[in-house]
Amino acid sequence: MKTNPGRFFEDYTLGEVIRHAVPRSISGGERALYHALYPARHALYSSNEFARASGLPDSPIDDMAAFHIVFGKSVPDISLNAVANLGYAEARWLRPVYPGDTLRSQSEVIGLKQNSSGKTGVVYVRTTGFNQHELPVMEFVRWVMVRKNSPDAPAPEAVVPETAAVVDPGDLVIPAGLDFSTYDFGRAGEPHRLGDYEIGERIDHVDGVTIEEAEHMMATRLWQNTSKTHFDATPRADGKRLIYGGHVISMARALSFNGLANAQMIAAINAGSHANPCFAGDTVRAWSEVLDRAEVDAPGVGALRLRLVATKGGAPFTLKGEDGKYLSNVLLDLDYWALMPV
Amino acid sequence: MKTNPGRFFEDYTLGEVIRHAVPRSISGGERALYHALYPARHALYSSNEFARASGLPDSPIDDMAAFHIVFGKSVPDISLNAVANLGYAEARWLRPVYPGDTLRSQSEVIGLKQNSSGKTGVVYVRTTGFNQHELPVMEFVRWVMVRKNSPDAPAPEAVVPETAAVVDPGDLVIPAGLDFSTYDFGRAGEPHRLGDYEIGERIDHVDGVTIEEAEHMMATRLWQNTSKTHFDATPRADGKRLIYGGHVISMARALSFNGLANAQMIAAINAGSHANPCFAGDTVRAWSEVLDRAEVDAPGVGALRLRLVATKGGAPFTLKGEDGKYLSNVLLDLDYWALMPV
Amino acid sequence: MKTNPGRFFEDYTLGEVIRHAVPRSISGGERALYHALYPARHALYSSNEFARASGLPDSPIDDMAAFHIVFGKSVPDISLNAVANLGYAEARWLRPVYPGDTLRSQSEVIGLKQNSSGKTGVVYVRTTGFNQHELPVMEFVRWVMVRKNSPDAPAPEAVVPETAAVVDPGDLVIPAGLDFSTYDFGRAGEPHRLGDYEIGERIDHVDGVTIEEAEHMMATRLWQNTSKTHFDATPRADGKRLIYGGHVISMARALSFNGLANAQMIAAINAGSHANPCFAGDTVRAWSEVLDRAEVDAPGVGALRLRLVATKGGAPFTLKGEDGKYLSNVLLDLDYWALMPV
Repeated sequence: MKTNPGRFFEDYTLGEVIRHAVPRSISGGERALYHALYPARHALYSSNEFARASGLPDSPIDDMAAFHIVFGKSVPDISLNAVANLGYAEARWLRPVYPGDTLRSQSEVIGLKQNSSGKTGVVYVRTTGFNQHELPVMEFVRWVMVRKNSPDAPAPEAVVPETAAVVDPGDLVIPAGLDFSTYDFGRAGEPHRLGDYEIGERIDHVDGVTIEEAEHMMATRLWQNTSKTHFDATPRADGKRLIYGGHVISMARALSFNGLANAQMIAAINAGSHANPCFAGDTVRAWSEVLDRAEVDAPGVGALRLRLVATKGGAPFTLKGEDGKYLSNVLLDLDYWALMPV
Repeated sequence: MKTNPGRFFEDYTLGEVIRHAVPRSISGGERALYHALYPARHALYSSNEFARASGLPDSPIDDMAAFHIVFGKSVPDISLNAVANLGYAEARWLRPVYPGDTLRSQSEVIGLKQNSSGKTGVVYVRTTGFNQHELPVMEFVRWVMVRKNSPDAPAPEAVVPETAAVVDPGDLVIPAGLDFSTYDFGRAGEPHRLGDYEIGERIDHVDGVTIEEAEHMMATRLWQNTSKTHFDATPRADGKRLIYGGHVISMARALSFNGLANAQMIAAINAGSHANPCFAGDTVRAWSEVLDRAEVDAPGVGALRLRLVATKGGAPFTLKGEDGKYLSNVLLDLDYWALMPV
Repeated sequence: MKTNPGRFFEDYTLGEVIRHAVPRSISGGERALYHALYPARHALYSSNEFARASGLPDSPIDDMAAFHIVFGKSVPDISLNAVANLGYAEARWLRPVYPGDTLRSQSEVIGLKQNSSGKTGVVYVRTTGFNQHELPVMEFVRWVMVRKNSPDAPAPEAVVPETAAVVDPGDLVIPAGLDFSTYDFGRAGEPHRLGDYEIGERIDHVDGVTIEEAEHMMATRLWQNTSKTHFDATPRADGKRLIYGGHVISMARALSFNGLANAQMIAAINAGSHANPCFAGDTVRAWSEVLDRAEVDAPGVGALRLRLVATKGGAPFTLKGEDGKYLSNVLLDLDYWALMPV
């Protein structure tokens, strides 16, 4: 068979490195599309002048766009036969991505654990994106539940990698040259600096965006994510397509500008759960909770740890029910480190 | 509160200058998206070669795209709490915008008048866009009705600025170097020059475009216009979003290519009214009326003053009823100066 | 009348060359949009690095994007009054198109034949696209049935051009420098080379994409194709717009990556039929049949002749009924030459 059937659980070997296909060059076109698809306004990603005043050579593409490209390349090898995308950890951005760069990605299998049913197993990978100079631009751990092709295939030795619950602030990688000591709060859109955010503080980002099929499909294709569940309406009776979880992350992050305009760069994702599926017609809203603050080694720059929650309506600041499960209106629960001016 | 509540009527002071946030860099991506979102075909904005043959260094981004960016930046400060966008005047394009440019904008409060109800007031601003060299690229006056936050706030002294009913042709700014003396009518698409248009002549632009939610939201986001009414379907029972008026202007202007292919550049908008709201599912059509002709000081270049009317169907060339009000099928009534070959 | 009424059958003269209007400059924006609109993953069009390793100066825009631009420019002169787009032949790509290029196109009338009804006729044109150096980038023959404006207009002498049923492999134009001798199959996504494809072999490309109105309109506008049937929902009772046939070609070609990832470049289209119309809501799938293989004069490069069939569901590998007519689920039957590593 010439087509890619995807890998099954028994096709993965602990320690193997899978080089993902189809490197991708980026131009101003990807940046413009990102701004058309999401209400993105963080100044560092909108203005070359603002980025240069912050010590960068130019305005990079959005951190989440870099994530989507690196992630998208891994889909044909990692999650084509996935039953569920179980979690993320230790995502770190290592180097900004600029128009003109070409990205590829690869994944190392760092854990395998067959489920007790014998029909599925959990695959843990550390995926890394590289630019055309073979320099890493970002990395993340994710784990997915994958079907076995043959129930008789023997179970591998169970290895569950230890990942940090939270990326240590000392492990955050600050882009070379980043300097917020002359940060222009007026141009950025809000006056709030790191010290203005109290741990435990919650922010309702107010705005909502009702999602259309055409938009999420364009976004997901742009990242060359080929998972058919996002494009083919025929499997579901209601003709809806399951929206790529990353689309919800980008939408929520963009909405969080209103109240977090100065949380300019995403430095790390500590953890993330897609609590409920998102479909066209849902109106995505977002709220944030300040989890922590930290110092980092760059002039004028600090780190804010945030919980970003995307919902499809319902009261803000509610997350889980008495049963400890996510409420049905919660789409995303993301724990990340952002870089902002002190 | 960390989020932007928007300004209320009593928050404006006559003479103050509000610098709007989030400067925006432009690339070929914005140009490509403009061509994907509107049936734009004016050759000067489509072809670098055509633009160079017309004396410009390169093909600029569409004049309306420049307007949308400058306008979009003003929304969080001027019209977030607007009840109505009442009018435009004295819009002038001062300098073409090219890929690579970064735009910011600011608004000066030039008039304030509380309404007799005491609950709202009209704010008049002159908004100016600047490029990365701090050179102005366009300016316009607009006035919006804004809610008061506190009914008890005292009324300011009423000042209503005088604006020109029509921009004087002598005040039109012709881009440096613009030269239509070797204009290639074949490549531009139509043979009609300035002298072929008679004052009073009317042109039905024939074509219609049925608008989709995904398109107008992508367009409006691209200009970083954050007005929630364009994105959030939940406030209306029919799940429709109010379409940004500028989307209708761009659509009508692009449709007017058919009959006005040589009305290459917009030099000024004299006046504009959004006569009725536009919603997804509406099929936008356009007709034009020649209002005036004028000489300008550039080789081979003249100015044509046009009324551009966008409708959602109905007979062309009808505008208002016997009561003097716009007919219900009329979406836009725009009065502008275009530059074209003589 | 200032607007373009389109040409009628009696307006064409054998041998005349019609220069189409509105040259178009291309940037990374068009490439990004192509990737957002279609699930395109062929590495040569995705990665500058991959293209350079294949001997090209940079990653070109997709061959079908070049076709769409050249074709789109011809619509106002050739097919505005077309009753039917009857066929394609002898399409050849002559030179890759890169961001920064500006394309124009022209058509030579190479055949005319009035239909027996006296109300319509068939116009045969050879359309050629040129870049800013006036070098041809592609050409194709197409024939369309066009209405007569006046039934009394005399019939021209019937001339039906002879076109090749299949472009001779010796006539395929290989881009200067193209070299697949160090081709990286891992980065391209599949291990299959020319010799792995047997004549008669059929490939089901598995995936399906459900099409939305917003997407096909954005695609068709991007190519400045003005045929109103693609944009105006009012003529049809169901509010649907007829989807540009080229949108189906691009969608099917992109889907064919899964099984034909190394069929990198389209060198020629031998024949093509839009078997049935496509509408929003249809889920497009694709299958291919290997028709022939050929040697070409470039290191490591060979040519594979493929039938590419797009359907809106139904069993793969079925094409026509017992009556010799296309089955109702078949959208496209395309016969083309692709360049791939040997």
